[in-house]
Amino acid sequence: MIELRKDPISSKWVIINDTRDFQFEVEKFSADDDTSSCPFCPGNEHLIPRPISCYDKNGKKIDVNSKDWALKVIPNNKPILTIEGSILRKAEGIYDKMKGVGAHEILIETPKHKDKFLYKKTSTFITNVLAVQDRINDLRNDTRLEYILVFKSYGKSSGGTVSHPHFQLVALPIIPKSVKDEMTSAKKYYDFKERCLFCDIIDQELSAKTRLVTENSSFVAFVPFASRFPFETWICPKEHSYDFRNINDINKIHELAEITTSVVKRLNRALGNNISYNLMLHSYPLKENKIDYYHWHIEIVPKITKFNGFDLVSGMYVNPTIPEDSAKFLREAE
Amino acid sequence: MIELRKDPISSKWVIINDTRDFQFEVEKFSADDDTSSCPFCPGNEHLIPRPISCYDKNGKKIDVNSKDWALKVIPNNKPILTIEGSILRKAEGIYDKMKGVGAHEILIETPKHKDKFLYKKTSTFITNVLAVQDRINDLRNDTRLEYILVFKSYGKSSGGTVSHPHFQLVALPIIPKSVKDEMTSAKKYYDFKERCLFCDIIDQELSAKTRLVTENSSFVAFVPFASRFPFETWICPKEHSYDFRNINDINKIHELAEITTSVVKRLNRALGNNISYNLMLHSYPLKENKIDYYHWHIEIVPKITKFNGFDLVSGMYVNPTIPEDSAKFLREAE
Repeated sequence: MIELRKDPISSKWVIINDTRDFQFEVEKFSADDDTSSCPFCPGNEHLIPRPISCYDKNGKKIDVNSKDWALKVIPNNKPILTIEGSILRKAEGIYDKMKGVGAHEILIETPKHKDKFLYKKTSTFITNVLAVQDRINDLRNDTRLEYILVFKSYGKSSGGTVSHPHFQLVALPIIPKSVKDEMTSAKKYYDFKERCLFCDIIDQELSAKTRLVTENSSFVAFVPFASRFPFETWICPKEHSYDFRNINDINKIHELAEITTSVVKRLNRALGNNISYNLMLHSYPLKENKIDYYHWHIEIVPKITKFNGFDLVSGMYVNPTIPEDSAKFLREAE
Repeated sequence: MIELRKDPISSKWVIINDTRDFQFEVEKFSADDDTSSCPFCPGNEHLIPRPISCYDKNGKKIDVNSKDWALKVIPNNKPILTIEGSILRKAEGIYDKMKGVGAHEILIETPKHKDKFLYKKTSTFITNVLAVQDRINDLRNDTRLEYILVFKSYGKSSGGTVSHPHFQLVALPIIPKSVKDEMTSAKKYYDFKERCLFCDIIDQELSAKTRLVTENSSFVAFVPFASRFPFETWICPKEHSYDFRNINDINKIHELAEITTSVVKRLNRALGNNISYNLMLHSYPLKENKIDYYHWHIEIVPKITKFNGFDLVSGMYVNPTIPEDSAKFLREAE
């Protein structure tokens, strides 16, 4: 198949082409086993800044000095943005700039350094959800901030020197262009159809079933029609919801944890154990009020394809696998 | 410095942050020395499709069977798009798709397999320019096509199995989103100011000089204000020109070759010999007529930073070097 498919959300065309030789290079996660110098391990607290908050295994906030934490949030000590100061938007001739103000936090997912395949346990993911919601609630009081990125880079390419399981949160004083593009497409669709684009996508995926990976009563996981990468999988709430913080019923959080761990397990079964991946939360911008056209979701992309320069030069992706094939593979990797 | 800078052309904010530990990992180009099985070497013509066209060292078209070629254009035998058939735009429910119609050509830049540091000679680049212009002239007669990408991926990450010097041309039945974004920003600026955005940028860079790398009478090379990558360098014609094919004066082509080879040499001197890089031509979409707001240019990005997942999850770049520092380094690497 050589086909061009348009992702209705990013408005990007993707080339789907499975006719070329393609060597799968699945990147495996290999943890550094040295716990003595790991700044995230209990006992090495002197190596890291004072925690912002700590949570027990039920996701309940506990004292930041407690030894019984299940998840601990710390500021990144080499942040990509700094929390101090005001934004100071300025011109430099025709250019625009501002101070690099924002938050960069590390969420340490477990005290156990070698908990490599963390998402075996849905309980871990429940704690993650509650901690993220709590951090978003706190940070949205800071009026300088416009958007919060929450993501996990699991594996070598994460760029960090710390292999202890963690994910990251970056709060920005701007809305990234990629999010703006999503909002623009979704808004245009809503203006035209008076329906949420994501809700329509979910309906179609649930009835077509060809790209479906798995579902439960509140969530659906599918391989997107115009996937950029092999085995890319999205998880969406079935009911319209623009804000990740709206998932506040413990049963729903349990279902989200269940479907997310199921997708990660399927990827591992299909592609080999302990694969590297990126997981990212897409939620609505902080200063938007109740919106009808946006729908929060989670995107998971296993690291298989090498960055080959073509996406850089073209802004386009070539996906060497047919999304329907990826989905079938993941459906069967139960 | 921790600063957010907006690229006026892509409308993307870039985080400029040189406060974090950053290990330069300059990727070197290492050629496969086996010429016996190289499909691009003279004598192995049976391994490749019949050439589309051949050029002598002055860029003059010669017989496709000539042995005296300086540059040879062949169809890619595993193309990402296929030249046959009609586009057939179709819906699949709410989705949009079309047949993967387009051209994918390889421009073999020299018969010499081991001509590793090719851009030492400006003459090679002159031939490249004339061949690209000729291919664009030919392909724009195909009314199915909307845009032509011309790029060189020099180094390991190019993804190809062939190390013989070459670059690629991909003709698309759509305008990529990244190009559309450039056009939109440039058009908005033109509507507001009644001047070309690129012309204003060039003026500012020429007078500020802080990001200037080098210039000659027709072209300027500078590190962009909101560079995504360390040592990213753009080459622009000083005079307004939306179409790469407008450079048809041999003296100007010589100047373009001179400045491009100068930039590649400076990158090599500054970062170590035989570095890998991406070079891409940004010209206007095929079906646009004479336009006042777009300005063709060449972007060169050396491969230094690893893909770390953050640009994927955020659609944002973090540049660990200050553009003014990169420019100073390149200015002095004469």
